[in-house]
Amino acid sequence: MRTVNTITAVRRLVEFQRDKGKVISLVPTMGYLHQGHLSLVSIARRRSDYVVVSLYVNPTQFGPHEDLAQYPRDLDRDLELLRHAETDLVFHPSDHEMYPLDHHTVVRVTMLSQVLCGRSRPHHFEGVTTIVMKLLNIVEPDIAVFGEKDFQQAVIIKRMVRDLHCRVKILTGKTIREKDGLAMSSRNTYLSPGERKNAPILYQMLQWAKKRFAAGMRSSDRVLTTMAKKIQAKGGLIDYAVAVDPDTLQRVTILKKGTLIALAVNFGKTRLIDNITL
Amino acid sequence: MRTVNTITAVRRLVEFQRDKGKVISLVPTMGYLHQGHLSLVSIARRRSDYVVVSLYVNPTQFGPHEDLAQYPRDLDRDLELLRHAETDLVFHPSDHEMYPLDHHTVVRVTMLSQVLCGRSRPHHFEGVTTIVMKLLNIVEPDIAVFGEKDFQQAVIIKRMVRDLHCRVKILTGKTIREKDGLAMSSRNTYLSPGERKNAPILYQMLQWAKKRFAAGMRSSDRVLTTMAKKIQAKGGLIDYAVAVDPDTLQRVTILKKGTLIALAVNFGKTRLIDNITL
Repeated sequence: MRTVNTITAVRRLVEFQRDKGKVISLVPTMGYLHQGHLSLVSIARRRSDYVVVSLYVNPTQFGPHEDLAQYPRDLDRDLELLRHAETDLVFHPSDHEMYPLDHHTVVRVTMLSQVLCGRSRPHHFEGVTTIVMKLLNIVEPDIAVFGEKDFQQAVIIKRMVRDLHCRVKILTGKTIREKDGLAMSSRNTYLSPGERKNAPILYQMLQWAKKRFAAGMRSSDRVLTTMAKKIQAKGGLIDYAVAVDPDTLQRVTILKKGTLIALAVNFGKTRLIDNITL
Repeated sequence: MRTVNTITAVRRLVEFQRDKGKVISLVPTMGYLHQGHLSLVSIARRRSDYVVVSLYVNPTQFGPHEDLAQYPRDLDRDLELLRHAETDLVFHPSDHEMYPLDHHTVVRVTMLSQVLCGRSRPHHFEGVTTIVMKLLNIVEPDIAVFGEKDFQQAVIIKRMVRDLHCRVKILTGKTIREKDGLAMSSRNTYLSPGERKNAPILYQMLQWAKKRFAAGMRSSDRVLTTMAKKIQAKGGLIDYAVAVDPDTLQRVTILKKGTLIALAVNFGKTRLIDNITL
């Protein structure tokens, strides 16, 4: 496994592999890796010959009052995990390398970026699409892998790739969970012991919704109202609890197969998201 | 020369050439071609093996009260000119091909897009950078050629390409002029005979500014004030008359070698732009 900090170095190493006819994959991460990330690396490993993982806490996807400074980092541990996951190349650039002072270009997917998480994090997805576009153009991978926990992010990136005719194929990996069902997230470390104990209610209610749907329930209102109530009872402050079309992210009133139930809930200062597909 | 309407067809034809090791070039145009466009095709011809020209009146770079509907079009004449210019491939897509109804992605270069032409045409450059990014990703050319008459556009595209790490090399071609100095533009056809007679004052004053600079004048204010006065005397309504740094497009008060003097002037309903580098 090689670790490099510069765009030039990544390009040189990847180009060497591409010239040999290798299939290149990219797994963009912000580091502080958990089993969720590693499952994406494992998909990349199976589907390509040369796996590139980027470790970069992208400042442009954090709002001014968000947790950029506190975002957890542990480079040595990340590198150790990636070595075990048979990563070929780690790209770990500085802010200066990615955003020189006169960097002024942004990529934005309107509409899809304004709903759900985009309402409480107005510039978040613009930061995501901009850094992903940059990484895609630097690495020029054949495939790139994203997690389904960040469902809206995956939908937005797929739309960007389609609209801008990027050559990459976007794959997604299933949400990986703790034993009690909590979706793995680097931000779970922020939770107090009490909050951590209550947080699995998100997945419990998503599973409950899926069961109710299987039992014939079709009213999103009725399902969501109950979900919200039970989550609030565990101390969660609902940002949103919605049933949406998985492509347009527009709300639906009638549940059907494929409908996405998505949650964003604050436990104390920690914002958790999770989702399930009916 | 082949002419195609679909993204799939362009990609297939270009890929075939790329696989043969050919250097690919792209000249994006909105059609209604004049010698200015053809000079860019000629640069592309000299610098590459396979010349792609796009003919597409891009709706997203027109404001709601601008001249999209009236923009002049003459496909047969354009194709004839491109055939004579030894173009290999013409891409002439429909709006539906470029912007399906659920197309929601935009590329924007902030700062540089807000000054000069961006002040009176607030969404213009976002439309330009979005369509150029799309065309670059569709054709994946080694070089792309733009005209220096649209100086701000060229600066913005170069910045986008740098910021988003696009592989293409951007070349620019000198402004081509009528015998009396008027910069060639598809929009010149809008001018009434009287306006057409007065329009060369733009280039006359740009040349005058260059001469004054050569003679030792360094105050941008003094040069610009005289220029504006003379242009107004010919019936031109000044949108801007500025001296700017050619990379940042920020105004300068002291003229120096490399400073860009740029003009945007309305003659009746026609907005003309021109510029000169000191």
